[in-house]
Amino acid sequence: MALIVQKYGGTSVGSIDRMRNVAARIKRTRDAGNQVVAVVSAMSGVTDGLIKMAKDLSGNPCERELDVLLATGEQQSIALVTMALRELGIDAVSITGRQAGIHTTGSHTRGRILNMDPTLMRGFLDEGKTLVVAGFQGITPDGMIHTLGRGGSDLTAIAVAASLKADVCQILTDVDGVYTCDPRVVKNARKLPEISYDEMLEMASSGSKVMQSRSVEFAKKFGVVFEVRSSLNDNPGTLVLEEHPNMENVVIRGVSIERSQARVTITGIPDEPGMSGRILGALGEAEINLDMIISNIAHDGFARHSFTMHSSDLGRAQAALKPLLAELSQSKIETEAGIAKLSVVGIGMRSHSGVAAKMFKALGDAGINIGMISTSEIKIAVTVEESRIEDAARAVHNAFKLDQAPV
Amino acid sequence: MALIVQKYGGTSVGSIDRMRNVAARIKRTRDAGNQVVAVVSAMSGVTDGLIKMAKDLSGNPCERELDVLLATGEQQSIALVTMALRELGIDAVSITGRQAGIHTTGSHTRGRILNMDPTLMRGFLDEGKTLVVAGFQGITPDGMIHTLGRGGSDLTAIAVAASLKADVCQILTDVDGVYTCDPRVVKNARKLPEISYDEMLEMASSGSKVMQSRSVEFAKKFGVVFEVRSSLNDNPGTLVLEEHPNMENVVIRGVSIERSQARVTITGIPDEPGMSGRILGALGEAEINLDMIISNIAHDGFARHSFTMHSSDLGRAQAALKPLLAELSQSKIETEAGIAKLSVVGIGMRSHSGVAAKMFKALGDAGINIGMISTSEIKIAVTVEESRIEDAARAVHNAFKLDQAPV
Repeated sequence: MALIVQKYGGTSVGSIDRMRNVAARIKRTRDAGNQVVAVVSAMSGVTDGLIKMAKDLSGNPCERELDVLLATGEQQSIALVTMALRELGIDAVSITGRQAGIHTTGSHTRGRILNMDPTLMRGFLDEGKTLVVAGFQGITPDGMIHTLGRGGSDLTAIAVAASLKADVCQILTDVDGVYTCDPRVVKNARKLPEISYDEMLEMASSGSKVMQSRSVEFAKKFGVVFEVRSSLNDNPGTLVLEEHPNMENVVIRGVSIERSQARVTITGIPDEPGMSGRILGALGEAEINLDMIISNIAHDGFARHSFTMHSSDLGRAQAALKPLLAELSQSKIETEAGIAKLSVVGIGMRSHSGVAAKMFKALGDAGINIGMISTSEIKIAVTVEESRIEDAARAVHNAFKLDQAPV
Repeated sequence: MALIVQKYGGTSVGSIDRMRNVAARIKRTRDAGNQVVAVVSAMSGVTDGLIKMAKDLSGNPCERELDVLLATGEQQSIALVTMALRELGIDAVSITGRQAGIHTTGSHTRGRILNMDPTLMRGFLDEGKTLVVAGFQGITPDGMIHTLGRGGSDLTAIAVAASLKADVCQILTDVDGVYTCDPRVVKNARKLPEISYDEMLEMASSGSKVMQSRSVEFAKKFGVVFEVRSSLNDNPGTLVLEEHPNMENVVIRGVSIERSQARVTITGIPDEPGMSGRILGALGEAEINLDMIISNIAHDGFARHSFTMHSSDLGRAQAALKPLLAELSQSKIETEAGIAKLSVVGIGMRSHSGVAAKMFKALGDAGINIGMISTSEIKIAVTVEESRIEDAARAVHNAFKLDQAPV
């Protein structure tokens, strides 16, 4: 008898009818001879409604209290899904984050999992019960309610699977797997049967928002093999696991795109120690997430730095840099919005050369200009004009024949 | 510095604006030099909405899961009221039932308080914080969420006051105290400055629905003096406390009425051991709450029993008695709806005679017929026709001069 952890998001449990569907799916998994631990999110809309009430009361609600408030959303879901299961004759029991033994650390509303104590869950499983666990929540070392921030329910599912040594962890969502590229952009994109943790991480940080990076990192750290699959059908999804030798036969696993990017370039920076730190520090204090960062020394002896960020951060970035630029008489700031990022990702890159050349040729043949370039061991990312990003994705996807399953 | 426990019901915290009013009131109490522990209910409507979702999923929702579901209502209130307090600059912190150390026993949805561990609350109070405690909830010995049933938040407030040895416990509600009679019926009814636990218990069981009996019993058991007062103004309310010698100067504390009563009389019952048990057993199994119970032996050698109950239970009572009556050929059932109950309550009755005579004379003078009569040490209750209950209340209220403060 296998132990299967299934994670259902807010849309999957978004109404009483949908909860019945979730219960039916859990029952099917159970009837097939498995034990099931379901991890559920708050009903879609509930969390937003609670945040709205908090914001009505306070411009800056106390984060400890936000955790107490928001944790009720998942608590309602576990009780209701458990009732739906019991209505189908399944001996189910709800489990809060505290009861699941999810011990956390870090600031309120942004908890990190410190360790897991699955004693209570294990006891219920030994009695043959089906468990419905609240995602997104845990407790601090002094017993306070703590939430895990965005994507927290995925993290709960991975952590529960790790602590119970589950055989399978299924992340059931509104996409039916990880694709070689966004199928809305590249019609012949192909669902990947498997992808390594590292590739998944690079895809996540490159705009493929199937899962948050930290859940994938947690799974990698604890060796939890998980599957991303649809909550709407029974098709196999994509397995995410540690890389194995066969995987390297594929040079490129996928192409990901990220729109609405902007570039800031600062020229004429004195070539002195500490200057980069001051610039990045000013942007960090303004809580601007930088993506690509490129620095070099120009032939005039001054340095220049370029960064990309989400275009909605551009105004705040300019404001944050203003005081520093006022000090540096030679410096100028140059900005460009309306760009997008294209990345190719694959662990096969480590042992294959010529990937960049092939990618750049494909873009050149399509008449698409490349802006910034940045690389990691298993990724090459470039910026292009946002108006050409879909053409760029199709050109690169074709060049690497990603529509064809590897032999 | 006094420690004051204040209980706010669902109507008092029924909207964001009302929560702000509650916070302002707590701040005033705090500014007057007191420490405050507020016990709050779920926002009015929230609990009903949750129950509706549960009933949509199941005709008979699992009670363990109902507890998990319903406890979220109070958890939301404590977080929001705490945010409102912090917005006023008060260093407040929310406390769930578990964190308040409310340990319970009994069935799910109908918990009883077993003991209290106020360690966490005490620690926060020592740091000078204001506490906002979730009413209506606690935890079972094995750490499961448990709710306390109807009136549970009053019970929480009394228990918190007992465990913290609070100086004052205020039950803030939509009435501004306990009256000699319902002021909507008797215009010159007078607010009582104080009432003994036992009188309050008899009033509660006689239709004065200010508080549930078990909260009063709990307060009596642990010697918690509490005050019933309005959440809408700062007028003093009614203190509920152990009787003291001065209280006995008043013969009758108040008059209470209960409408929509019905009577069932069974005649011709064989005078055999066990017959009363079988009759009461049949009604108990049908979960019918009996109020007055009168039995006697008629001169024909058969017994007759009369009971009163809420008139909405009459049909079920008749159905429940049918099998038994089919066995007893001499028995007949007679029912009467459209009656009401009038009670006079006062500990002074113990040392004063003639109370019943005065009461019956007042009713007779008003031309009101008395049906059943039942008495306890500090209460005399009678049934009258429901159409005459208000006249009856005014006649008795006048006869005992309850509109005048005792000298």
